[in-house]
Amino acid sequence: MPKPPRHVFVCSQNRPAGHPRGSCGQKGCAEVVDEFMKQWQQRQLFAQVMVTLSGCIGPCNMGPNVLVYPEGVMYNNVSKADVAEIFDEHLLGGRLVERLKAPSDIW
Amino acid sequence: MPKPPRHVFVCSQNRPAGHPRGSCGQKGCAEVVDEFMKQWQQRQLFAQVMVTLSGCIGPCNMGPNVLVYPEGVMYNNVSKADVAEIFDEHLLGGRLVERLKAPSDIW
Repeated sequence: MPKPPRHVFVCSQNRPAGHPRGSCGQKGCAEVVDEFMKQWQQRQLFAQVMVTLSGCIGPCNMGPNVLVYPEGVMYNNVSKADVAEIFDEHLLGGRLVERLKAPSDIW
Repeated sequence: MPKPPRHVFVCSQNRPAGHPRGSCGQKGCAEVVDEFMKQWQQRQLFAQVMVTLSGCIGPCNMGPNVLVYPEGVMYNNVSKADVAEIFDEHLLGGRLVERLKAPSDIW
């Protein structure tokens, strides 16, 4: 597969219940991961975007977290309902989704 | 954690024995993952580099695969012995490790 213009990493990290860091898994990332994969496949966006699951990318208490490269933009507290907007605005349109963007002291 | 200048994703994908795609797991990525984590921690490079495990990034038969952003450079067939060079040359020095770079038809 040739290198796509944008690559989105969706945190799928789990940790045991009661772990002090928590995890995106505990914050419900499974349905966010599923929605990214579903829309990527249904819309056939393989030439424009790559979607990859990732391990921990930092602010677990603000998860589910998503990271878009090459811009290096992190989104926090992403819900299933936000995924279409991330595809349409950022991954395809090149416009950041400001309301989900990580604060500058976090990333 | 503030955004570091470079972010390396190390594929940690496993698939069952006999799976037709194979996986970086079957190609020995576990010791590559361990070496990235060990050197990152021993050298205390948290401000310069972020290291994250990832799911599949594509060419499973050429694994273990590693991907560096923001450049979007993929390295294939990475061994434990290559990790120090990737840190010194690319992640810290900004010079690509040409001998490990993915062919342009792959990435």
